[in-house]
Amino acid sequence: MKTIELNQPVTAANDKDAELLRASLSDSGLLLINLMSAAGSGKTTLLSRTIRDLKEKVNIGVMEADLASDVDALSIEALGARSIQVHTGGCCHMDAFMTGEALAEFDTTDLDLLFLENVGNLICPAEYDTGAHKNVMILSVPEGDDKPLKYPLMFEKSDVLLITKTDVLPYFDFDLDAVKERVLHLNPSIRIFPVSAKTGDGMDAWEAWLQGSLSAGEAHA
Amino acid sequence: MKTIELNQPVTAANDKDAELLRASLSDSGLLLINLMSAAGSGKTTLLSRTIRDLKEKVNIGVMEADLASDVDALSIEALGARSIQVHTGGCCHMDAFMTGEALAEFDTTDLDLLFLENVGNLICPAEYDTGAHKNVMILSVPEGDDKPLKYPLMFEKSDVLLITKTDVLPYFDFDLDAVKERVLHLNPSIRIFPVSAKTGDGMDAWEAWLQGSLSAGEAHA
Repeated sequence: MKTIELNQPVTAANDKDAELLRASLSDSGLLLINLMSAAGSGKTTLLSRTIRDLKEKVNIGVMEADLASDVDALSIEALGARSIQVHTGGCCHMDAFMTGEALAEFDTTDLDLLFLENVGNLICPAEYDTGAHKNVMILSVPEGDDKPLKYPLMFEKSDVLLITKTDVLPYFDFDLDAVKERVLHLNPSIRIFPVSAKTGDGMDAWEAWLQGSLSAGEAHA
Repeated sequence: MKTIELNQPVTAANDKDAELLRASLSDSGLLLINLMSAAGSGKTTLLSRTIRDLKEKVNIGVMEADLASDVDALSIEALGARSIQVHTGGCCHMDAFMTGEALAEFDTTDLDLLFLENVGNLICPAEYDTGAHKNVMILSVPEGDDKPLKYPLMFEKSDVLLITKTDVLPYFDFDLDAVKERVLHLNPSIRIFPVSAKTGDGMDAWEAWLQGSLSAGEAHA
């Protein structure tokens, strides 16, 4: 079998904007978490459950990036959390400049934690530093256990991997141990939390990590 | 809730290359089908089943586009079908120029039908005409029934929508009728086939469409 390489340069002009944005957020004591995944992996469902579980303890806001629709921001707003919908005009990822533009329009007063729900895409968002303090990614069980082999960059760039929809593990050929091994081979320092936002299984470990990041003052790092 | 628009130009310089490539394929009587979907929706599994079902009647080849790995082309080759692995060097989609480069390296002698398995991504591939005669997309049940609302372009650009993994419908909140209605609202002429490559349910209608496209001489259109 023949294999051919089509090399394309990837822009890195975004990195300086990201450093400035991150420093500015740290100064104001706001922790920004960039949440990435393929379309359909359940980012909004995971966020909704997290907000419901933590809202008495942590003031959480959400910036919902999407190509065109408002369905995700409406879901978050229905939970009583502050949210803003960002339309990327067809663009397949958020970068630091776009994140800064969205932040300039968003009232972050009294917020402890701000999620950027990136565009649903397992590839492009991993290439652009958004200025967030932490990158968190989702791999849902139905997507398959070969994803770390096929889309390594996002696994390499993430601080946390949430393996979601674990409630449907019995119905899919998904080898959880194999995924962990593949991911840790790419990124030995990543934290891995298998969760089901539907049943609540595993959510406590993920939420403890979030609260630990807040109390450790990650935003001031 | 506030909504802000971040407009970005989308390149269209690719269209002329695509027309030339399509004309050249038509001249040689080879039908090229561009298969698109999010990562993890089961493109390779669907193709593998299709090849197994049709290989006595149709000579099928596959160009597997991926960021870096060879796992999909190896799966296809194991079925005895001719395949080539295209590494996009991190690029999140195939365009007509890249498709032409891959074709130049691929022996298409005696092939009736060639699939381009595009990079797993529900967004960017829809923006680039690859030169294919038909666009076919996959939406798998676990991805959710809101995808036509959130990623409308691919649904608008596709001739066929395969709704896959229907065997797990009982385990997900997925309203098949709502999806059909949303998709037909975006694209009234799209053909929709619900299928399970695992059980074989619905594969006959999709395969009949493929054979119909071949015998109607779509490649010569």
